Amino acid sequence: MIIQDSFKINTNKNFEIIDITSQINNLIAIENGIISIFSKHSTSAIVVNENEKGLLNDLEFMLDNLVLDKFSYQHNRIDNNARSHLKSFLLSSSESLPIKNRKLDLGTWQSVFFIELDGPRHNRTVTLTMVGE
Amino acid sequence: MIIQDSFKINTNKNFEIIDITSQINNLIAIENGIISIFSKHSTSAIVVNENEKGLLNDLEFMLDNLVLDKFSYQHNRIDNNARSHLKSFLLSSSESLPIKNRKLDLGTWQSVFFIELDGPRHNRTVTLTMVGE
Amino acid sequence: MIIQDSFKINTNKNFEIIDITSQINNLIAIENGIISIFSKHSTSAIVVNENEKGLLNDLEFMLDNLVLDKFSYQHNRIDNNARSHLKSFLLSSSESLPIKNRKLDLGTWQSVFFIELDGPRHNRTVTLTMVGE
Repeated sequence: MIIQDSFKINTNKNFEIIDITSQINNLIAIENGIISIFSKHSTSAIVVNENEKGLLNDLEFMLDNLVLDKFSYQHNRIDNNARSHLKSFLLSSSESLPIKNRKLDLGTWQSVFFIELDGPRHNRTVTLTMVGE
Repeated sequence: MIIQDSFKINTNKNFEIIDITSQINNLIAIENGIISIFSKHSTSAIVVNENEKGLLNDLEFMLDNLVLDKFSYQHNRIDNNARSHLKSFLLSSSESLPIKNRKLDLGTWQSVFFIELDGPRHNRTVTLTMVGE
Repeated sequence: MIIQDSFKINTNKNFEIIDITSQINNLIAIENGIISIFSKHSTSAIVVNENEKGLLNDLEFMLDNLVLDKFSYQHNRIDNNARSHLKSFLLSSSESLPIKNRKLDLGTWQSVFFIELDGPRHNRTVTLTMVGE
């Protein structure tokens, strides 16, 4: 069985981390299988980790340290968001996760996050593709 | 057909790389399809690369250079393992891989690894979700 | 329904980014589902982002800055390509993506890329595993 769905996200800051775990669980429509969670944007990311405010600030700090502001990126001649794309390369725009008993089969300390790397933006789209039974 | 399984890993060091390729192959119960390999912990990772001792030491070295010890991370006020989480963000906690003829369809020089980033720990859980026929 | 396919890539430079979106779309043989796109090599990567020449140069630049040349990597005693492997760890060797109406369901600015990190090479293999209906 294949079920496809999607939802929209509006973001309010340049860098913003949004916990989408319960939004995904509400849309799960199979009992067991795999779900692909995919962001249709190349300046955002989908990741799994712990929802702790300090840690999420540390993630922003680390990304700023890995993709330094001091360099002149070529993409900025076209659109001034090269660093947003480069951070997205490091985190990736999708996750494929297990579904068990009609919900994400995550560990106790795990959440799924949408990461806005070039906001604020309206109508960011996340697609869900469930394969299972 | 959906098959779900899992296994446990005990780790002995703070940073440890464990080749789980044959453990996964032994649990594969479909002929062809996709397998999601997922670690239920946010201070660990699942990756695919070459099993060469020197390279695996280089990986540890690179991660320590990317997530520097000299900064004071906010998450460390809660739990002294911010760097373990941040390395996990860079590597990701899952892989979805092809199954062909009842085994992982990897290249000659590829293995699947569980990476412990905050050990030693007992009962790390890796789940396997196979979709196929 | 499970469909498995693959194609070969020849690369001409040490670092090279090849847009494989239309090649994948031409091989899609299901209507809706998930496709696993997997490179059978541990010195390459599969990523999703924008096909803009300047940005792709920025990606090469960033990776060279993250995996520095000045260190002496242990893997180089065996094979002089430790940095190629380490870049592959950061980007990952697969992507699992949604298929809708017999094509990749990507956003307007998204392409799928094969990234050569240790070329030039002949016969790089990318496998496609489609699960759906």
